[in-house]
Amino acid sequence: MSRVYNFSAGPSMLPEAVLSRAAAEMLDYEGSGQSVMEMSHRSKTYQSIIDGCSSLLRDVMQIPDDYEVLFLQGGASTQFAMVPLNLAKNGKADFVLTGQWAKKAYSEAQKLLGDGARAVASSADKTFSYIPALDPAAFHPDADYFHICLNNTIYGTKFPTLPDTGSVPLVADVSSCILSEPLDVSRFGLLYAGAQKNMGPAGLTVVIVRKDLIGEPREGTPTMLSYKTHADNGSMYNTPPCYAIYICKLVLQWLKEDIGGLEAMKAINEQKAALLYDYLDQSRMFKGTVEKGSRSLMNIPFVTGNEELDARFVKAAAAAGFVNLKGHRTVGGMRASIYNAMPVEGVEKLVAFMEKFEQENA
Amino acid sequence: MSRVYNFSAGPSMLPEAVLSRAAAEMLDYEGSGQSVMEMSHRSKTYQSIIDGCSSLLRDVMQIPDDYEVLFLQGGASTQFAMVPLNLAKNGKADFVLTGQWAKKAYSEAQKLLGDGARAVASSADKTFSYIPALDPAAFHPDADYFHICLNNTIYGTKFPTLPDTGSVPLVADVSSCILSEPLDVSRFGLLYAGAQKNMGPAGLTVVIVRKDLIGEPREGTPTMLSYKTHADNGSMYNTPPCYAIYICKLVLQWLKEDIGGLEAMKAINEQKAALLYDYLDQSRMFKGTVEKGSRSLMNIPFVTGNEELDARFVKAAAAAGFVNLKGHRTVGGMRASIYNAMPVEGVEKLVAFMEKFEQENA
Repeated sequence: MSRVYNFSAGPSMLPEAVLSRAAAEMLDYEGSGQSVMEMSHRSKTYQSIIDGCSSLLRDVMQIPDDYEVLFLQGGASTQFAMVPLNLAKNGKADFVLTGQWAKKAYSEAQKLLGDGARAVASSADKTFSYIPALDPAAFHPDADYFHICLNNTIYGTKFPTLPDTGSVPLVADVSSCILSEPLDVSRFGLLYAGAQKNMGPAGLTVVIVRKDLIGEPREGTPTMLSYKTHADNGSMYNTPPCYAIYICKLVLQWLKEDIGGLEAMKAINEQKAALLYDYLDQSRMFKGTVEKGSRSLMNIPFVTGNEELDARFVKAAAAAGFVNLKGHRTVGGMRASIYNAMPVEGVEKLVAFMEKFEQENA
Repeated sequence: MSRVYNFSAGPSMLPEAVLSRAAAEMLDYEGSGQSVMEMSHRSKTYQSIIDGCSSLLRDVMQIPDDYEVLFLQGGASTQFAMVPLNLAKNGKADFVLTGQWAKKAYSEAQKLLGDGARAVASSADKTFSYIPALDPAAFHPDADYFHICLNNTIYGTKFPTLPDTGSVPLVADVSSCILSEPLDVSRFGLLYAGAQKNMGPAGLTVVIVRKDLIGEPREGTPTMLSYKTHADNGSMYNTPPCYAIYICKLVLQWLKEDIGGLEAMKAINEQKAALLYDYLDQSRMFKGTVEKGSRSLMNIPFVTGNEELDARFVKAAAAAGFVNLKGHRTVGGMRASIYNAMPVEGVEKLVAFMEKFEQENA
């Protein structure tokens, strides 16, 4: 078996230790005689898995007690609707447009709230290659919440600082940066993330929400789209995505025990990102596409400026075991997503490969 | 490793061959160097998995070409909202109340359609222990659809015949009976099923819908709750529950190749059910709770009439490797769910254990 270095934007690499343990436990989880996939979600054994996952997430992220952790389905795309349906009591929300996903969140809110959804800043003018400066004077103090996408997977940007929204709850899509470094949860009203980048397999969505924001949703909201439904039932109103939650628990165990928590994870991620950014900054062939102050720790797009050369590089890299480096069609070129599970040596080897490619194709 | 016989109502047993293959492929799917959990859902390799799953389902269930197969998230509980949001163009639907899930589907439709949701029959008078006779004169010819729960997991009943609803599309929750025997899909407008009984792990919901019924949903419907969103994007509008779909594909392969298809599966399921029902019909200790003409092939509730004895039986059975036999709290006693993956020998051994228990506790 030869494992590849997978630079996919998501779903993406998982720690090999997690996959090995999942494989070993597939037919018999801890002497239960059952796979986790086969277990009643109402069993004590499964309850201890979901409780363990929740406790580990609270521990690793230092989530304050006045926040609820919910394990849901439907991805960030479903949150684009659930957030306005549940939080927009007065039908008003501010949005910062920093990429395709931020725009989708805004569009969905417009669909549900009409003009109550308002864009207060955008970086569309330069293909979202930077995080726009935010002018608090442009914020609406009557907004029910203020929405950002903290790390933009496609464009490779990350908010360098969090906006100060005063008493307006800050809501963030953190799908592609959750667990990559410490985050002060108390600065947010609500955080949501599709699991398929740093947490586990696709099919699990994690929501972390301040308890006072959970209440009756807007009229006509389906029961399954109400945070209250899930908060009142410990994320077990109906059958949760049991196996994805189990894998998420294994990932959190790895993060806590093998890595040493989020500060240690941040140091590793900064080391990986520096390896690639430092190379890009001095390369005469490859160039990063993002302004320096807005660079993501997780997603690093780069181009040669020559489409034919880009394609040749992507093909050669794949043949050498560096897969999924093709960039998003709206940016072109390449993108290396270096999530938590990408080892340092994966980035070291990629940079060495890029150096060699640059020399051979100068 | 000692595997148990798991009579859980769901999530429930999966074929051991499926679990073994999933374990073997966990770190490297077919030479890709990746787990299926790690793959980009936009990769060719993953596309062939989801396409393969869809083709196998069409093949095994003989789904006509004018039906769409959708792989969604959120369970049957989300379908309770999606069906009225998408199909109730005129805001009207008929419901048969045959248990807790059928009632939930009705309640959610009432929430969204108000008085347009109408109950046309119920078996609540006898704790849902039978399927009520249906009087077509009570049906509403102006209904947008007619909803039934084909097999009732909690109460162990199954519609012996399908109601004739004329030109009104028949919609059925088939979560606990899909793939258990052949089903004439052309009789339905829409079928939906949570996967976690006969199809795969929790976190995947399968919808089979006649293409002409897919259109613009009711105003204010979230994008993710529109069938059109998913039909227009081959169930990949956003990241689907990739791993659950992969396991479902393995289950369908097992069903087609190892079992021999739905006719063969039906014969095995009838053999298993007959073993248990025949024993119950002659036992002086255990009695089935369902009227003979309404019996389920998948879920078999039974009682001793003595709660203390029930509890003793459940405990002794678990110690002997027959787990999750405790009945639902609204019925009491025991329930044996004998889905496709429960081998004949599991039911044979359970019956032998019941006979012995009956003798020893007579």
